[in-house]
Amino acid sequence: MAKQITSRQENYSQWYNDLVVKAGLAENSAVRGCMVIKPWGYAIWEKMQRQLDKMFKETGHENAYFPLFIPKSFLSKEAEHVEGFAKECAVVTHHRLMTNPDGPGVVVDPSAKLEEELVVRPTSETIIWNTYKNWISSYRDLPILVNQWANVVRWEMRTRLFLRTAEFLWQEGHTAHATQAEAIAETEKMVGVYADFARNYMALPVIVGHKTESERFAGALDTLCIEAMMQDGKALQAGTSHFLGQNFAKAFDVKYQSKDGALEYVWATSWGVSTRLMGALIMAHGDDNGLVLPPNLAPIQVVMVPIFNKPEQLDAVLEKMRSIKAGLDKLGISVKIDDRENVRSGFKFAEWELKGVPVRLAIGPRDLENNTVEVARRDTLTKESLSIDGIEDYVKNLLDEIEKNIYAKALAFRDEHIIKVDTWEDFKTQIEKGGFLLCHWDGTAETEAKIQEETKATIRCIPIDSCVCEEEGKCVYSGKPSHRRVVFARAY
Amino acid sequence: MAKQITSRQENYSQWYNDLVVKAGLAENSAVRGCMVIKPWGYAIWEKMQRQLDKMFKETGHENAYFPLFIPKSFLSKEAEHVEGFAKECAVVTHHRLMTNPDGPGVVVDPSAKLEEELVVRPTSETIIWNTYKNWISSYRDLPILVNQWANVVRWEMRTRLFLRTAEFLWQEGHTAHATQAEAIAETEKMVGVYADFARNYMALPVIVGHKTESERFAGALDTLCIEAMMQDGKALQAGTSHFLGQNFAKAFDVKYQSKDGALEYVWATSWGVSTRLMGALIMAHGDDNGLVLPPNLAPIQVVMVPIFNKPEQLDAVLEKMRSIKAGLDKLGISVKIDDRENVRSGFKFAEWELKGVPVRLAIGPRDLENNTVEVARRDTLTKESLSIDGIEDYVKNLLDEIEKNIYAKALAFRDEHIIKVDTWEDFKTQIEKGGFLLCHWDGTAETEAKIQEETKATIRCIPIDSCVCEEEGKCVYSGKPSHRRVVFARAY
Repeated sequence: MAKQITSRQENYSQWYNDLVVKAGLAENSAVRGCMVIKPWGYAIWEKMQRQLDKMFKETGHENAYFPLFIPKSFLSKEAEHVEGFAKECAVVTHHRLMTNPDGPGVVVDPSAKLEEELVVRPTSETIIWNTYKNWISSYRDLPILVNQWANVVRWEMRTRLFLRTAEFLWQEGHTAHATQAEAIAETEKMVGVYADFARNYMALPVIVGHKTESERFAGALDTLCIEAMMQDGKALQAGTSHFLGQNFAKAFDVKYQSKDGALEYVWATSWGVSTRLMGALIMAHGDDNGLVLPPNLAPIQVVMVPIFNKPEQLDAVLEKMRSIKAGLDKLGISVKIDDRENVRSGFKFAEWELKGVPVRLAIGPRDLENNTVEVARRDTLTKESLSIDGIEDYVKNLLDEIEKNIYAKALAFRDEHIIKVDTWEDFKTQIEKGGFLLCHWDGTAETEAKIQEETKATIRCIPIDSCVCEEEGKCVYSGKPSHRRVVFARAY
Repeated sequence: MAKQITSRQENYSQWYNDLVVKAGLAENSAVRGCMVIKPWGYAIWEKMQRQLDKMFKETGHENAYFPLFIPKSFLSKEAEHVEGFAKECAVVTHHRLMTNPDGPGVVVDPSAKLEEELVVRPTSETIIWNTYKNWISSYRDLPILVNQWANVVRWEMRTRLFLRTAEFLWQEGHTAHATQAEAIAETEKMVGVYADFARNYMALPVIVGHKTESERFAGALDTLCIEAMMQDGKALQAGTSHFLGQNFAKAFDVKYQSKDGALEYVWATSWGVSTRLMGALIMAHGDDNGLVLPPNLAPIQVVMVPIFNKPEQLDAVLEKMRSIKAGLDKLGISVKIDDRENVRSGFKFAEWELKGVPVRLAIGPRDLENNTVEVARRDTLTKESLSIDGIEDYVKNLLDEIEKNIYAKALAFRDEHIIKVDTWEDFKTQIEKGGFLLCHWDGTAETEAKIQEETKATIRCIPIDSCVCEEEGKCVYSGKPSHRRVVFARAY
């Protein structure tokens, strides 16, 4: 079978695109910057959604749904927010088409112009806080812990499948609290949920930290994030949690009466992850044969491929496979028997490798005689022949081992590519090699901007894991004193 | 506690609105015609989604996601489709806002006009068939069995929460087949899934039938539907399944090479249900105290309310409740203990009644002494005192009984309000009383339109349950010969 995708070494960016398209994850649509998420890609996203949704509910959150459209004037109510989001967005100006009087097709009906234009939500703080105004009057109404699963639109100029698309799918949590302390605790709790999800389900090591002021969400007082490293050494921001202070409460006049009768503004947070996580998953673990899925997020964890020369052999093999599948089903493992007859087994092997299924079991006529099965691991590309007796428990343990191994591999790669850099010369050399550079920084936006201008590197975060980074030093760029290192990298 | 909602008899329409808002299901938003689905409403919708999604997957379908936007020209490609959907839709014309040069706020940036306007999807046949064109070349690529969960927008002039909103949530299945027979079988299968869901989860009796030509989906050759009766005797279309023939394949030039090498157009179906189902659920089962939820769709199936006078009594009651809850959890029953201390138990009773929770358990200090619990049913509003021993199994059976009872009640109501009508005078009298009128019809769109004009009644469907309706007769309006009765009603 011919090589299906460009190798990482040859062209990492092309490798990514090839993998996304050929593994059936997503493709570009006829609409500029909007993608079609194909069934296999959507099935993985659904696994992510189910798990995240469970974790949100376990931490006391409920789902709700708010309008797709935001009145233009709402965006202007929070000064920084409008700066950040009004620039590139989809604007609905009319509500009707009509038959083209001058030719074929339909045209916009000029008489159906909206009084106020509507923006397709780029994020929902404004419409939600306008709603919360009616939900909150007393401390008894607080906290509000609400999440929304939705599509959002940001008119990006340069788009890439999953990583940056005009429309994407995400969840956005929006919470309202009586006190600053409670809102800050929520912000921290949710970035913790994201880190937990990344590590234990995506097998993705992440650094948790604060964004600098210039990298903050538009309208936030503080943004916490999780940052992951891709195999080309670039950083990918995989989730953010914002402490919004009272900015939106003030913009939409949302006050509550406290226990002692005073009227006070409400405190807010918001937090989100998106289909961007799909990009992180692909780029963190994929190899030159395709996707490598952590078992915890694989829609199919085990694929079984029958080997046969004559049709009459197939029945006996399939019968054996069905009995193994029944045993695996009972253990809660999702299994597919690929019994297609018009496709050769070599083709099937390559296809399921490309799609990243963690474990492949192959059984042929000789295996039936010997009571054996060939077990292939996607993560290591190794295979072995084992007795069918007890194969169910073996596979269950193997899936756990694969999940751990994928994480360990990503962690080792990342840790090899985190280095402390103390001079500007060294910085300029190292940043070309990729990876995370732990450096002292003087804390000014000016220095941050200059470093980005000269090297395209940004401060990914100020890690909250203080033991690693808190030490005295001098800014790698300005030489001014600094009390801690921060993470610099080029990023997606 | 004061009556929270208008009674059905006083004003059915106001009753509905009061219930939706006061039970925390949904409310109007700041955006014309768009609703906010509140947590309790969304939780019920999630239960519907999970069950439907399971049924779609069991019948071989996969989920995917297609763009929110549809290029204007796509809509024109299928002649009837554009007639049906281009009229009232949200049109995106620009992709940027800018600071208002003449005052405060932001305005549309005239330099950011799109070359081709984009329509926010009112339904996705066009964008999907434009995509399928690239997915299909051979019979081996068929069938495609794909479903999408999404939001859609139709610029309705008169909106009502859940029943008719500018934006709503739905699922839309879009399948592609090699043969006409296979596509028709799919259309029938999916209306069957909807009928099964309505009956066994929503406890909603439905009539399955064909739409007349004038009531068909724009672009379909045949539309199958499920029709339910609300408590005011009006009909509500709760789901549709369309046989689209080769219309969209021809519009988007989608052909496949058959086994014998010929190039042929692909056959299509589409099918959908929406948040409108929430309206059906409310109006079919609700009473003057609020919502009545079938246990199979209740986010909370059992609520437990502690009764106490002194705080020290509460602990003992809660301890007993937690042990009962543990037993119910094991049986897969979702239970909430309402341990709020700042709210009186009478208020809690009314609130959970309003929200429709099927079973309420109350325990007070005297119950602890007697080892008893008060069990209240939402459907019948009856209550009884029972021994705590074995209460878990009792509740499990009770939930099954309530599900059946709600269905039986709705079925009896509906069947009482289905009548055969054979004269036009009788028709005009009966239609004022509500209900489904089984009448002969001459099969012409002309007669159908005249009947609607004179009485606001439409043909809801031509039932496929042939034994009830196939008989010779004369059209109730024109007197011309007819071979079967059809269902007339006023509808939501």
